[in-house]
Amino acid sequence: MSNAETILAHIEEHRGQWLDEVCEFLRIPSVSTDAERDGEVRRAAEWLADKLRAAGCEEAELWETPGHPVVYAAWRQAEGAPTLLVYGHYDVQPEEPVDLWESPPFEPAVRDGRLWARGAADDKGQLYIHVKALESWLQTAGTCPANLVFLMEGEEEVGSPNIQDAVRKHQARLACDAVVISDTIMFAAGLPSITYSLRGLTYLQLDVRGPKGDLHSGSFGGAVVNPAEALARMIASCRDPQSGQVAIPGFYDDVVPLTDEERKEWEKLPFDEDAYRQELGVDGLLEEGEYGVLERLWARPTFEVNGLLSGFTGKGSKTVLPAKAMAKVSMRLVANQDPDVIADLVEEHLRRVKPAGVELQVTRMHGGKPWLTPRDHPVMQAAGRAMERAFGTAPAFIREGGSIPLVSLLEELFEVPSVLMGIGLPDENAHAPNENLDLGNFYAGIASAAFFYEELAGLK
Amino acid sequence: MSNAETILAHIEEHRGQWLDEVCEFLRIPSVSTDAERDGEVRRAAEWLADKLRAAGCEEAELWETPGHPVVYAAWRQAEGAPTLLVYGHYDVQPEEPVDLWESPPFEPAVRDGRLWARGAADDKGQLYIHVKALESWLQTAGTCPANLVFLMEGEEEVGSPNIQDAVRKHQARLACDAVVISDTIMFAAGLPSITYSLRGLTYLQLDVRGPKGDLHSGSFGGAVVNPAEALARMIASCRDPQSGQVAIPGFYDDVVPLTDEERKEWEKLPFDEDAYRQELGVDGLLEEGEYGVLERLWARPTFEVNGLLSGFTGKGSKTVLPAKAMAKVSMRLVANQDPDVIADLVEEHLRRVKPAGVELQVTRMHGGKPWLTPRDHPVMQAAGRAMERAFGTAPAFIREGGSIPLVSLLEELFEVPSVLMGIGLPDENAHAPNENLDLGNFYAGIASAAFFYEELAGLK
Repeated sequence: MSNAETILAHIEEHRGQWLDEVCEFLRIPSVSTDAERDGEVRRAAEWLADKLRAAGCEEAELWETPGHPVVYAAWRQAEGAPTLLVYGHYDVQPEEPVDLWESPPFEPAVRDGRLWARGAADDKGQLYIHVKALESWLQTAGTCPANLVFLMEGEEEVGSPNIQDAVRKHQARLACDAVVISDTIMFAAGLPSITYSLRGLTYLQLDVRGPKGDLHSGSFGGAVVNPAEALARMIASCRDPQSGQVAIPGFYDDVVPLTDEERKEWEKLPFDEDAYRQELGVDGLLEEGEYGVLERLWARPTFEVNGLLSGFTGKGSKTVLPAKAMAKVSMRLVANQDPDVIADLVEEHLRRVKPAGVELQVTRMHGGKPWLTPRDHPVMQAAGRAMERAFGTAPAFIREGGSIPLVSLLEELFEVPSVLMGIGLPDENAHAPNENLDLGNFYAGIASAAFFYEELAGLK
Repeated sequence: MSNAETILAHIEEHRGQWLDEVCEFLRIPSVSTDAERDGEVRRAAEWLADKLRAAGCEEAELWETPGHPVVYAAWRQAEGAPTLLVYGHYDVQPEEPVDLWESPPFEPAVRDGRLWARGAADDKGQLYIHVKALESWLQTAGTCPANLVFLMEGEEEVGSPNIQDAVRKHQARLACDAVVISDTIMFAAGLPSITYSLRGLTYLQLDVRGPKGDLHSGSFGGAVVNPAEALARMIASCRDPQSGQVAIPGFYDDVVPLTDEERKEWEKLPFDEDAYRQELGVDGLLEEGEYGVLERLWARPTFEVNGLLSGFTGKGSKTVLPAKAMAKVSMRLVANQDPDVIADLVEEHLRRVKPAGVELQVTRMHGGKPWLTPRDHPVMQAAGRAMERAFGTAPAFIREGGSIPLVSLLEELFEVPSVLMGIGLPDENAHAPNENLDLGNFYAGIASAAFFYEELAGLK
């Protein structure tokens, strides 16, 4: 058998065992934003380090940070071969609202060929393909074509506040020739995809405060500026409803325009706007001038309300004039918008439109730069060949609307290309109830990763 | 001693005992909007009926309704004397947010000459002055100058959905010559007040639904209309920020303009706008053209956001594009606005401004008509004399921004005048944390009520 055949047979043979392992990983509720679960986040880190050691890494350790630990591991026994850094994250989004899950978020269940649990797609299931790809090489060939360094953080879902310092501190141990990340989606079922751009993010919490206490809306209504209404007005002012564009002055100044070439390639992708709309269950989409859906998702920045809270929200009615109102808002950014500059612009705009009678506090929660890399880079093409071998189909080269804050830093520090070789699907509900992962893609993903190490070694 | 002196001495003697009784009443968490506390609401009704019986009423019973029971009681032994109907409510507002209370909402505490507890001012403490006023007459003079009928409901804070049917059903037993309600405030400490107008109310819940589930704001942001933003835009559209006026077409069509006479009288009231603003802790008030604060509070309708809820509202950040957003909004109405007509106008307006891509559901929670009665009516003047005797100061004749849904119906059914003889104070936090009642006003209120029965009898 060829190496490839041996790898594929090895994967086939271990399907059940590896599924059990992933389920064990998913049972740990490593919700990084919830301070009460710090212990669970650490337990997930320790579990992952154990598995990396068991897979054959000669180093596997936890790096302490002011927040959750970073899992570092390495297998560097392929002398003269290139080194690939695998970045991923073992933390997950909160599971709320729990009552919308068909099976409990931290009790993994297999239904319809998919694995259902918080973190299945984002990112525990995806990162694990690299653990098993290395192990497959070592158990079949006794060696791996490329050296591998694993960098797995526990704070990706809260904006990666500490990984950057950790990376700078341990930069020498992370030296590499390329970076691979499996935390993105395939364009469609059956169409493997390589992602060459990510949006950045600026996330803000807005706290509007009015009267010093809640008031009776009958006794005070008409004299007092309502903080919830003021907040609504400030939010509404952030978009021009006619053009659909964000109405914050300066917001689009640094946006790199979409190229005609990209536009043409994306038009060829199997995208059905009506089906998309129906799948979402809406009677209309958010429009922005002439931009198509994929263009708006991949190449245009956004303004989004992530949460609203004010006054009485229980059942029934309470005639209260609330003392305060809170919103969480975030902006997805595209090259070359800067998260801090955008946060400044948003804050300036909100202070300009804020009515007298209320105070505004803006808290910067987290941010990340957008990232864009050439599609024709040899490493990107090597990854494309690996995916084609594993899936039997040439991958599409696409962008992605989400954010992975560390990508920009890794590219900056090591001056190496990154490849986003994700195996998620668009309907896998990352960040929402009923998150899941297609198991066929999970196993093909392990093969893709294994073949990529071989293709990468072939470049030198 | 005169009757008056005897009554005052009797009140003086029983201060401690009656305070204990009110505290017992306030300890019952009769929150009518909370279905889990149905039993507590009933317990409050039974407690009140017992006290009315003990005070001397020959009838005291609970009238069952589809919701909470109505407490009915009567003392009708003053043959030939007029009958006064005392309306009040034994239910209270929810206590949330509990963490802002200085002492627990259902553990009454006396501090600074005030009684602190949910319901102290609105309305348990106020309604109780009539129970003790009747009892004072019967225990000192052996009779009361006027006949008294008590009608005490348990659903005032949820819009009085069942009292109207109960009143119609038992109309014959409620026959009366005048209505008195103690559920309003004095204009200022030391300035007793008679209220001759109330605002009405229309309360709506708005549910905006977008995509069928919560979405990842990176993967979908830019293509999907955000329900929280859409709701914010709909809310913002309800007021013209330049004029300060409600921007719902037709909203002001039925408003009875303020008279010059009222305007002039109100200008004489001891009202300091700067102090008012500072007391509220705000740097500006809600303005509406040339209308002064009292005019806006008493003679102008409002649009208020009472609650907002959408998406992720916990600590930290979650990059979710929420599937839905909810607002509770209410309009205070003035004569002659109709609650149903206004609800229609608001709903039509919201449907007109609602963007495609989201659905809107409008739920009508409750409403009540505004009420306005002549200030020079003999019964109103009799009440004024009673208050002057008890407080030593001539009362102001004022309006009130709040709503008591039943007042319009009682006036319509019995064609009798209503008098709002409230003893609350503007800073007693009805509907908010740290509700309280001035104990001096509580005891003077008992005297006012007792003297009013006498003044009323003197009219015939």
